[in-house]
Amino acid sequence: MPQKTIEEIANHVGGEVIGDKSKKIGSASTLDSAGPGQITFLSNPKYAPKVKNTNAAAVMVSRQVETNAVQIVTNDPYYAFMQAVVLLHGHREHPQIGTSPQAVVSKSAKIGQNCNIHPYAVICDNAVVGDNCQIYSGVFIGPNVKIGSNCILYPNAVVYDGCQIGDRVIVQSNASVGQDGFGFATHKGEHHKIPQIGIVVLEDDVEIGSNCVVERGTLENTIIGKGSKLGDQVAIGHGTIIGPHCLLVPKVGIAGSAEVGHHCVIGGQAGIVGHIKIGNMVTVGAQAAVINDVPDGATILGAPAIEANKAKRAYALIETLPDMRKKLKALDKKIEKLKNT
Amino acid sequence: MPQKTIEEIANHVGGEVIGDKSKKIGSASTLDSAGPGQITFLSNPKYAPKVKNTNAAAVMVSRQVETNAVQIVTNDPYYAFMQAVVLLHGHREHPQIGTSPQAVVSKSAKIGQNCNIHPYAVICDNAVVGDNCQIYSGVFIGPNVKIGSNCILYPNAVVYDGCQIGDRVIVQSNASVGQDGFGFATHKGEHHKIPQIGIVVLEDDVEIGSNCVVERGTLENTIIGKGSKLGDQVAIGHGTIIGPHCLLVPKVGIAGSAEVGHHCVIGGQAGIVGHIKIGNMVTVGAQAAVINDVPDGATILGAPAIEANKAKRAYALIETLPDMRKKLKALDKKIEKLKNT
Amino acid sequence: MPQKTIEEIANHVGGEVIGDKSKKIGSASTLDSAGPGQITFLSNPKYAPKVKNTNAAAVMVSRQVETNAVQIVTNDPYYAFMQAVVLLHGHREHPQIGTSPQAVVSKSAKIGQNCNIHPYAVICDNAVVGDNCQIYSGVFIGPNVKIGSNCILYPNAVVYDGCQIGDRVIVQSNASVGQDGFGFATHKGEHHKIPQIGIVVLEDDVEIGSNCVVERGTLENTIIGKGSKLGDQVAIGHGTIIGPHCLLVPKVGIAGSAEVGHHCVIGGQAGIVGHIKIGNMVTVGAQAAVINDVPDGATILGAPAIEANKAKRAYALIETLPDMRKKLKALDKKIEKLKNT
Repeated sequence: MPQKTIEEIANHVGGEVIGDKSKKIGSASTLDSAGPGQITFLSNPKYAPKVKNTNAAAVMVSRQVETNAVQIVTNDPYYAFMQAVVLLHGHREHPQIGTSPQAVVSKSAKIGQNCNIHPYAVICDNAVVGDNCQIYSGVFIGPNVKIGSNCILYPNAVVYDGCQIGDRVIVQSNASVGQDGFGFATHKGEHHKIPQIGIVVLEDDVEIGSNCVVERGTLENTIIGKGSKLGDQVAIGHGTIIGPHCLLVPKVGIAGSAEVGHHCVIGGQAGIVGHIKIGNMVTVGAQAAVINDVPDGATILGAPAIEANKAKRAYALIETLPDMRKKLKALDKKIEKLKNT
Repeated sequence: MPQKTIEEIANHVGGEVIGDKSKKIGSASTLDSAGPGQITFLSNPKYAPKVKNTNAAAVMVSRQVETNAVQIVTNDPYYAFMQAVVLLHGHREHPQIGTSPQAVVSKSAKIGQNCNIHPYAVICDNAVVGDNCQIYSGVFIGPNVKIGSNCILYPNAVVYDGCQIGDRVIVQSNASVGQDGFGFATHKGEHHKIPQIGIVVLEDDVEIGSNCVVERGTLENTIIGKGSKLGDQVAIGHGTIIGPHCLLVPKVGIAGSAEVGHHCVIGGQAGIVGHIKIGNMVTVGAQAAVINDVPDGATILGAPAIEANKAKRAYALIETLPDMRKKLKALDKKIEKLKNT
Repeated sequence: MPQKTIEEIANHVGGEVIGDKSKKIGSASTLDSAGPGQITFLSNPKYAPKVKNTNAAAVMVSRQVETNAVQIVTNDPYYAFMQAVVLLHGHREHPQIGTSPQAVVSKSAKIGQNCNIHPYAVICDNAVVGDNCQIYSGVFIGPNVKIGSNCILYPNAVVYDGCQIGDRVIVQSNASVGQDGFGFATHKGEHHKIPQIGIVVLEDDVEIGSNCVVERGTLENTIIGKGSKLGDQVAIGHGTIIGPHCLLVPKVGIAGSAEVGHHCVIGGQAGIVGHIKIGNMVTVGAQAAVINDVPDGATILGAPAIEANKAKRAYALIETLPDMRKKLKALDKKIEKLKNT
């Protein structure tokens, strides 16, 4: 592991040092665990007391705090910490193997420069893969798929025919992109499959978590907007459009033909029904059930989902229902008694 | 893309034409997007106003409406539209590659006529695969598995030993069929695995979505009935029986030893506990928690799930709980005041 | 199938026989289905009436009951039954194929004695696999992964670089272990990936269900404790620690940096938010939403989750909300009327 001085790190993140700049940092750690030779961060003020007693050599902060550690002050300490982690640890390195002789690459496929295509990957007819892509083992890239540059497809990810993937897209293991949408015409009690002629478009800088499922569109495309990140096991229905720079936490499910704006954050296990429109900058709480359009900037919670502050108060009162019921009965009795006096 | 005249399409679906039968149709689209040369449909009357102003060349309707588009009138316009989509676009075509030399097919396996077995598919000992099957890359067909004719197993789908699959079954990518049920005998604080000696039976015309999980039975079989369709990431517990012609929307979870009747529709993310019985023609709302037997024909909603209309009213009132609480206090005060007057 | 006498089975499980010890048993079945030549069990007293009329040859019980079947009496009849199932049916047998020539095993990987490595499995540089392991087709074992002895990795399971797996661990099909945690630093509206430098540790005797996702830690490790079992499609967030001997039913989701004690049981589809601490011996109901720390031994239910008995009463009353609302109005009217008299 390369060591860096605190000064080097501070220069890298554009921060100001309070303390000994010459100390060497070897790795990054959490506030609880960081020890000598390690850097950590404070972004949530509620953990400030922990910084006081940290054994870390250095800590990223947004303003000077009380601590024995050397401080690097920046506007956005978590972002600065991320940059430090990249500087110290780097992103995953990919083996430089070129195209494995045990991969199957169609003669009609076009593969860019400097790609690594692992054993048992399959790239079908007329697929296009850009430069510097990592195609891991067991990945299936269907016919006519287009993939940009600097993408990583982890083992056993599957991209169905015709889908389009931008630059710097990451698809984690066992994810499915572009399988048939759940579309059937029910006639006389039987469900008839509707050809799903749309595709999936993953724009630049999208990340798709492990075991995610992104259905292709029935007639129009399913789109994941630029820079949006899907956690593991997220499910996106056919024809749904997710705007740019959204965060969809693991296990989110969004039904078909829904529209989600930009910079939305959808909590774990939340569900959004089909054919509704979620505005921009919307925050949806974990396990929420969203069944109606949501305006820009709203924060909602609960099943059914309502405005978050309201929801917190209201859902917390469910446990008082037995008590309320009792009180209702008691009041009734009191009134009857009053009547009869 | 082949073009068809409106007359050809109308004849194909058994519909009556209002307008110019000779117009050519090249593709299908949604009511919002359809333009010249395209056909669309109206099945939900609330979208009737959109038909008036559609640019589509033709529209499937259930009775004459006001529109400039040519109309094809049929009893079931969505089903007719599905037929038109198949006519114009067809279902996915599968490459005719025969058995790839890079597939591993056991000598004791029996493979039918006209199958395509892709690179890196594995078909184990004594497995049987019927005619005209598509076995994509990375598919694993375990020992003694039986698969009927005209089935499609998409990349990286896994079928464990001994499972039985009917005709025209589709298993989408990364689905798991027949893995061990979640069955343990807990003894002195440790969980001991119970051999799962049942199998999974997928009857004819079943579709299993991407990344679904269908556990094999502990002692008896897990069965998905004829024509039932599972969306992506559906989970079926060991020994559970799903009747014919059900629709299980993505992310549904049904625990072990449950029984679901025929023609049920289970909404996204809904959960059904084990060892209960859901009747026929039951509709379960998205995210519902079903914890009791459900009679035939019921429509239920909510967590816990209750009759749907009741549920809509009741769950919508949760947000009024703070207000109800206030009112209770106010009433109490009023009564005390009355008492003292 | 080998047959065993009831005496042999009773000796094997340490039980006492009431009835004819010499009868032969060929297989195990459920109380409802068991017939002649089969053994079944009674562990839940509510099914006692079924034992009276069973056609089974033998039944495991905890004390003598009324039945024509031969009885084997043990302290823990379900555990004894499990032992009988293993005796009669055994666990799945794995083909003895050694290392397939179609598997890719890095020269720097170390493989133990007596392993079976199936076609299209990939074992990367410096990985270590212990003795007697079954590595099925399409499995990916990343660089520097360490796997103990007697493990089974089913088809298409993926283990990312550096993760550590103990002895007797089972990973079912299409599961993902060690993919990147959902960790991003958001800066000026864009989400920047934080290198996830922790790993996943699966301790001895862990089982990971099909299509599960266990994220690697950001800075510290994600740990699944000894003997814990994860059902299908369970999701574990980065840096979360699950104690030993827990049961996580299918579709459970636990966010990052949570801590779960030992011997917990988490019901299907339940969700646990990040950064909280669940005590030991805790039971969480299906679909519960756990948002606060939970003390040892608690049983909780509902969304939000509260003490189970309280929850059962409270959540069941949601359906009475329309009625309570009416009563409130009626009481108000009564009071107004009283006032005016």
